[in-house]
Amino acid sequence: RARIGQLVESDRFQMFVLGVIVVNAITLGAETSTVLHANFGPLLTMVDRLALAIFTLELGARLYAFGWRFFKDPWNVFDFVIVAIALIPAAGPLSVLRSLRILRALRLVAMVPSMRRVVTALVRSIPGLLSLCGLLALLVYIGGVVASNLFGDTGDPRFTGLGPTLLTLFQITTGDGWSDVMRDLMEQKPLAWIFFLVYLMVGTFTMLNLFIAVVCSAMQE
Amino acid sequence: RARIGQLVESDRFQMFVLGVIVVNAITLGAETSTVLHANFGPLLTMVDRLALAIFTLELGARLYAFGWRFFKDPWNVFDFVIVAIALIPAAGPLSVLRSLRILRALRLVAMVPSMRRVVTALVRSIPGLLSLCGLLALLVYIGGVVASNLFGDTGDPRFTGLGPTLLTLFQITTGDGWSDVMRDLMEQKPLAWIFFLVYLMVGTFTMLNLFIAVVCSAMQE
Amino acid sequence: RARIGQLVESDRFQMFVLGVIVVNAITLGAETSTVLHANFGPLLTMVDRLALAIFTLELGARLYAFGWRFFKDPWNVFDFVIVAIALIPAAGPLSVLRSLRILRALRLVAMVPSMRRVVTALVRSIPGLLSLCGLLALLVYIGGVVASNLFGDTGDPRFTGLGPTLLTLFQITTGDGWSDVMRDLMEQKPLAWIFFLVYLMVGTFTMLNLFIAVVCSAMQE
Amino acid sequence: RARIGQLVESDRFQMFVLGVIVVNAITLGAETSTVLHANFGPLLTMVDRLALAIFTLELGARLYAFGWRFFKDPWNVFDFVIVAIALIPAAGPLSVLRSLRILRALRLVAMVPSMRRVVTALVRSIPGLLSLCGLLALLVYIGGVVASNLFGDTGDPRFTGLGPTLLTLFQITTGDGWSDVMRDLMEQKPLAWIFFLVYLMVGTFTMLNLFIAVVCSAMQE
Ligand code: NA
Ligand code: NA
Repeated sequence: RARIGQLVESDRFQMFVLGVIVVNAITLGAETSTVLHANFGPLLTMVDRLALAIFTLELGARLYAFGWRFFKDPWNVFDFVIVAIALIPAAGPLSVLRSLRILRALRLVAMVPSMRRVVTALVRSIPGLLSLCGLLALLVYIGGVVASNLFGDTGDPRFTGLGPTLLTLFQITTGDGWSDVMRDLMEQKPLAWIFFLVYLMVGTFTMLNLFIAVVCSAMQE
Repeated sequence: RARIGQLVESDRFQMFVLGVIVVNAITLGAETSTVLHANFGPLLTMVDRLALAIFTLELGARLYAFGWRFFKDPWNVFDFVIVAIALIPAAGPLSVLRSLRILRALRLVAMVPSMRRVVTALVRSIPGLLSLCGLLALLVYIGGVVASNLFGDTGDPRFTGLGPTLLTLFQITTGDGWSDVMRDLMEQKPLAWIFFLVYLMVGTFTMLNLFIAVVCSAMQE
Repeated sequence: RARIGQLVESDRFQMFVLGVIVVNAITLGAETSTVLHANFGPLLTMVDRLALAIFTLELGARLYAFGWRFFKDPWNVFDFVIVAIALIPAAGPLSVLRSLRILRALRLVAMVPSMRRVVTALVRSIPGLLSLCGLLALLVYIGGVVASNLFGDTGDPRFTGLGPTLLTLFQITTGDGWSDVMRDLMEQKPLAWIFFLVYLMVGTFTMLNLFIAVVCSAMQE
Repeated sequence: RARIGQLVESDRFQMFVLGVIVVNAITLGAETSTVLHANFGPLLTMVDRLALAIFTLELGARLYAFGWRFFKDPWNVFDFVIVAIALIPAAGPLSVLRSLRILRALRLVAMVPSMRRVVTALVRSIPGLLSLCGLLALLVYIGGVVASNLFGDTGDPRFTGLGPTLLTLFQITTGDGWSDVMRDLMEQKPLAWIFFLVYLMVGTFTMLNLFIAVVCSAMQE
């Protein structure tokens, strides 16, 4: 056990796995090309299966070597989930999972120390933001219900039903094409601009403060 | 009185009211769906009325228990206004108030301590920004009068009258589709770009400073 | 002289001028409305002329009272320029100056102390930014000449001649509809994306640093 | 040698070269105008050749005076590369290099001390950002492969092949017109919004942190 542990933790083995990850990321990219897929399809599939086999073996070895301690490191859990997703037979409604195979490239992050630090810092900043994110989600929900009530009868497909309305409000929050949405509505509801003005001002102000909270907590560290 | 005060302030009662707020927010969202409205309309209306009754009773109890001290806490005033709005019979021109019933979900903010802190911080940052907001409003007004004089005779509906012009300038300030507005105008007024360049530069510079003022005041705390 | 100086500096007189500014700003806004212009045109013109007469008299009094010292305060120079612009007879090619009469509303800034502080801070932050703004202007100019050479022969009106090209690059710098511009060009020049990618990355990075320079210099004060 | 070194470093000579750079930048801009090109074409070409001759002579003098020490200063390397590019005969497939002649205007940056400081600061901030930029590039690549798999069969030209898909994801990252892309896809793939929501949230959060890293490192200096 200790020997296997030493082997999988050795620099050489890590470099090998890193290489497999990069090669696999490239072949998965190449598969999206119809030309490359037509000419090298079987080869690309073989490389993909081989990479998955290597990942599975490596993970098995680490699981065997470290036992349940393996799951104490969140980065190991991350690796485990990504390989486990890849092992689920992706047929029928699960075929979307095939598209997620490229997520294995995220293992790069776990293996390159400087990227690992960056992601650790990103993840640690999340808890402090939950209240503000919750407030923002509440604003979008409230805005969605109000907009649904006010504009649901216009026949505009962007406001029929709560789902599309929430999506439209998310769009407005990012500022993309909000004036087109408003001008289309104003043909039927000339006062629609009041909603957009209030929503954009409250939303921008809240997001600005969300942003400042991130900056401030980052500064203290 | 003290007993009722203790009751309405007890953790259990607060959790109950919190639950009613969440359930009410969900039913108000469900009402926007035509399918759910058709099948469960009476039930949703009943839940809504029940929730309003509970809020009214709770507010009455707190008013009775604390008397005029009740209005010293701005969060209580906030609760009072929201419930009062809901009690106004919303018929005829006031039917828009029905759409605002979902604002009751904002009571969540008052009841969850971490959100309450966030909103308190948001509100406290406002007074320091009033001068800059006033300056920004003055810029939009001046820009609106200038644009109205320069472009009012082009027949572009975005510049006919001061109201639409101010709305268009607000749109340009957010940066959404300003180049389309400019290029349309330039077909008739080839020098329109001068106005847009000056307005965008002055506006961006002022907003940048508005932003920095928020960051700086947040840092000092 | 001293008496006139005391008079124009007195709180009461200042409040009176402030009131004239606000009333004048409102009438200039009202003039943009065709309905109000048709019904109250002569009244609005009269108020405007009266306001200008008051401003001219006030400025004359201050000039008489303080002599050349008057021009030492940049706020006085600002007032002088604005009133002087209003006194130029605005006929023929100068008729655009009529649109600038609303700039008198900026005198509000000079008269409200808190706004005056904000603008003073804005203006003081400019010198430290000149190098970065110069760099940004240089980038837009270089990008404009390159884009003009690369895309000038496509017949796209956004890239015919250096002027329109510079305007289009300014648009791309603000991020408004840059992808539409790129996709239109890529029909004739499939490699146009390289220019956009490089320009956007260099531009964003420079603007980001421009922004940080503003924040940092604001923090030190 | 020392004399030539003194000469090329003298203030007068530097001012002269600076003048040549500015004049050359203006003539290169003027060449993009068809009118100016038709009337003053030979003159503009002559000024351009003369400027290039002066730059080459100046660079040669500095190379002769300082020998290999010349290449120790990165600003000299920068000058060398820009002049070398200009000397490559730009015919056939290399004709694009002609468009890059305006890059000589960047020599301005090297010659004006305050701009030089700004660019030095910009360049120094790059190494600390490489991890985050790498993470962002990885996200765009992963997003591109996923989007290519999910939306490649819709026939949307923005998602046919990995190249166009990566370009579209870059567009979405900048927030320009992302909702149009999404709504077009949702006609065929009603669940496309999930991809956009996840991608925009992860991307914005990462870019926000990239931004904060820049601010923080700038503050420490
Ligand atoms: Na846009
Ligand atoms: Na935009």
